Amino acid sequence: MPPVKKRETVTFLSDYGLEDEFVGVCQGVILRIAPHVKIIHIHHNILRQSIRHGAIVLEQAIRFMPESVHLAVVDPSVGSARRAIAIESGWGEIFVGPDNGLLIPAAEQCGGLKRAYDIVDRSFLLTPISRAFQGRDVFSPAAAHIANGVAPSDLGPEIPADELVSLEIPEAWVHDDHLHAEVLQVDRFGNLQLNVNRDQLESVDLVDGASLEVRMEGHRIYVPLANTFADVDDGEFVLVEDSYRHLSLAVNKGDAAARLRARAGSTAIVGPTAG
Amino acid sequence: MPPVKKRETVTFLSDYGLEDEFVGVCQGVILRIAPHVKIIHIHHNILRQSIRHGAIVLEQAIRFMPESVHLAVVDPSVGSARRAIAIESGWGEIFVGPDNGLLIPAAEQCGGLKRAYDIVDRSFLLTPISRAFQGRDVFSPAAAHIANGVAPSDLGPEIPADELVSLEIPEAWVHDDHLHAEVLQVDRFGNLQLNVNRDQLESVDLVDGASLEVRMEGHRIYVPLANTFADVDDGEFVLVEDSYRHLSLAVNKGDAAARLRARAGSTAIVGPTAG
Amino acid sequence: MPPVKKRETVTFLSDYGLEDEFVGVCQGVILRIAPHVKIIHIHHNILRQSIRHGAIVLEQAIRFMPESVHLAVVDPSVGSARRAIAIESGWGEIFVGPDNGLLIPAAEQCGGLKRAYDIVDRSFLLTPISRAFQGRDVFSPAAAHIANGVAPSDLGPEIPADELVSLEIPEAWVHDDHLHAEVLQVDRFGNLQLNVNRDQLESVDLVDGASLEVRMEGHRIYVPLANTFADVDDGEFVLVEDSYRHLSLAVNKGDAAARLRARAGSTAIVGPTAG
Repeated sequence: MPPVKKRETVTFLSDYGLEDEFVGVCQGVILRIAPHVKIIHIHHNILRQSIRHGAIVLEQAIRFMPESVHLAVVDPSVGSARRAIAIESGWGEIFVGPDNGLLIPAAEQCGGLKRAYDIVDRSFLLTPISRAFQGRDVFSPAAAHIANGVAPSDLGPEIPADELVSLEIPEAWVHDDHLHAEVLQVDRFGNLQLNVNRDQLESVDLVDGASLEVRMEGHRIYVPLANTFADVDDGEFVLVEDSYRHLSLAVNKGDAAARLRARAGSTAIVGPTAG
Repeated sequence: MPPVKKRETVTFLSDYGLEDEFVGVCQGVILRIAPHVKIIHIHHNILRQSIRHGAIVLEQAIRFMPESVHLAVVDPSVGSARRAIAIESGWGEIFVGPDNGLLIPAAEQCGGLKRAYDIVDRSFLLTPISRAFQGRDVFSPAAAHIANGVAPSDLGPEIPADELVSLEIPEAWVHDDHLHAEVLQVDRFGNLQLNVNRDQLESVDLVDGASLEVRMEGHRIYVPLANTFADVDDGEFVLVEDSYRHLSLAVNKGDAAARLRARAGSTAIVGPTAG
Repeated sequence: MPPVKKRETVTFLSDYGLEDEFVGVCQGVILRIAPHVKIIHIHHNILRQSIRHGAIVLEQAIRFMPESVHLAVVDPSVGSARRAIAIESGWGEIFVGPDNGLLIPAAEQCGGLKRAYDIVDRSFLLTPISRAFQGRDVFSPAAAHIANGVAPSDLGPEIPADELVSLEIPEAWVHDDHLHAEVLQVDRFGNLQLNVNRDQLESVDLVDGASLEVRMEGHRIYVPLANTFADVDDGEFVLVEDSYRHLSLAVNKGDAAARLRARAGSTAIVGPTAG
């Protein structure tokens, strides 16, 4: 058994929203068990039941978090037989959530998946366990006990890594000198984050042109690749590297998502300006 | 005078929303007086000025909270003569808020109402007291001083329990083998929480049928009583016991409230499937 | 160099909203550098890119905050050449944010602007600094280091006060016995905060009449000046002093903004009732 290690912080991501008391109740459960912790609310407006959206946000945010227990709940199969798991990453971060792929990309980001455990020991959970709200009854108390120094291995038997449900974040692919990409997520300002980084653009010789052609949701637009929004006039489209080093399609002081009627999952075909 | 007892946590529920600075300002006031406390935001999107919605949420959430001072503000009569009160419950929880019934069901849940005090001593409040924002000037500082160990009795004279404004959460009633229920609240997923528990269903022999008839907002639907959403196909209605042991009318991976145009307060008549 | 002074609290105001992970990521960055601090979220729904709205809210909220480092980010020119600054106020409060006027009214409120520094020392920032998310890479780490006791002067060279970008909050003016005012902000309840205080009303002899005439957005209404909403019937307009001692145009148990189709920036002409 590894030595007991208390953790000062629990990060929390979910699709619970802030319109009801789910998040507050989970926070109560955590602080009742582990009164010393600070809770960082990464995001509670993950698209409803979108494991993929949750996984993308968690994977991007995780690198800015202090050493923590990371609690994440996007759980469309709550109440069914899916497992509740605790993952230990190579760097010693602990992830707690449903076994549906949600935690995997973030764990990969933190030194890779080292060990995983099936959370089954009811002495660490709230019983009776409701079928509808396992964030409260399973995941929050498990995360809080781990923050108190309980070893993940105390919560239940180890699960071989290849038995965990996996999740792939889609990668852009090249066809005919064009990158076939997709929108990973849309931020509050309507900026469209693509699953493309600058290296990929360079690999298809797309960084030297004055502008790129982007086809999305039936639109065909010509967009300069710039350093910052302000390099184009107000209301003009621009491609910039966003704060996670992804390519982002934006409108300076405007809303690219609204202009193109695009959303997470929209396809983007990026290529050289014709002619 | 009871011995001074510091409390580490203040829970906070209100209808202030998160669209303006009300919640942040209250938090500032609390931490200026009691820098040691943690604040658990139970819910700030209580339906605007709905004492009853606030009371229902507080009563349900309270059982998951650590020992705390519980601050709750839903206050349609702010600025009028209604009293500000501190309630001590049988289990030693302290509730602070307006004397309009908001705190009563939660205090009942925590060992019953033991003593109540009229918050009048201005040395514990922010003066001049604004008429419009007593969450900031009265309730937050009172809660913070109590968290610091000030006895509720120091804030003002005791009020006999029978002089407090009361509030009843409506109970379902039986007529002609049907339960006449109502929607207590709607969660983010559109699940409709009814004021019915499984015992009440059993009392009218409604648990053995293949499905129940529910009439609501002009609709008449036939709904199976199941253990979990996933027991029905996607898009189908289902009745399940929710995480607070209330009966909940839901649509698997869908939105029951939108489908039925129902909301908190909607009437539900639940009976056996005809024929 | 001033003696090192740790601060226990960081207040945080932004236009990031709560729909994405920006606020949570900034919180992670702060707690990774300064694990001891408490973060007070004053407001994250500042009107998108409205420096003026952010400045008004910060200036009003600041007087209720404990001694803190005040982090504020409304930054329409992120990525351009605008400076990042730390301001020390006369009372020793520290403000961190963009040099666009956002921080000025709040600093004036806290004993005036004493010294300002250009945040340039990259050893206190996250590098590489993204152009799009300087809240994460510049402002949050700078605020956290200051909370740890780093002197603002360690972050970069002093900037003369007269070289800072300034911002004026508009004041009402008098013409022909009428106050020409404007709506500073609208709260969740639709109450319209005007840039008018009671002294200004008195200065044009407007406090004695039974009611005042208000012209706004094409409407002309006659509104009593009252002590509290409840002094008028439900659904009636009323002028009251709000919790910041500004005049507020409200509807008792209703929504003045919706009734008048008014919003922040709407003009209000307030005068005596004709005849």
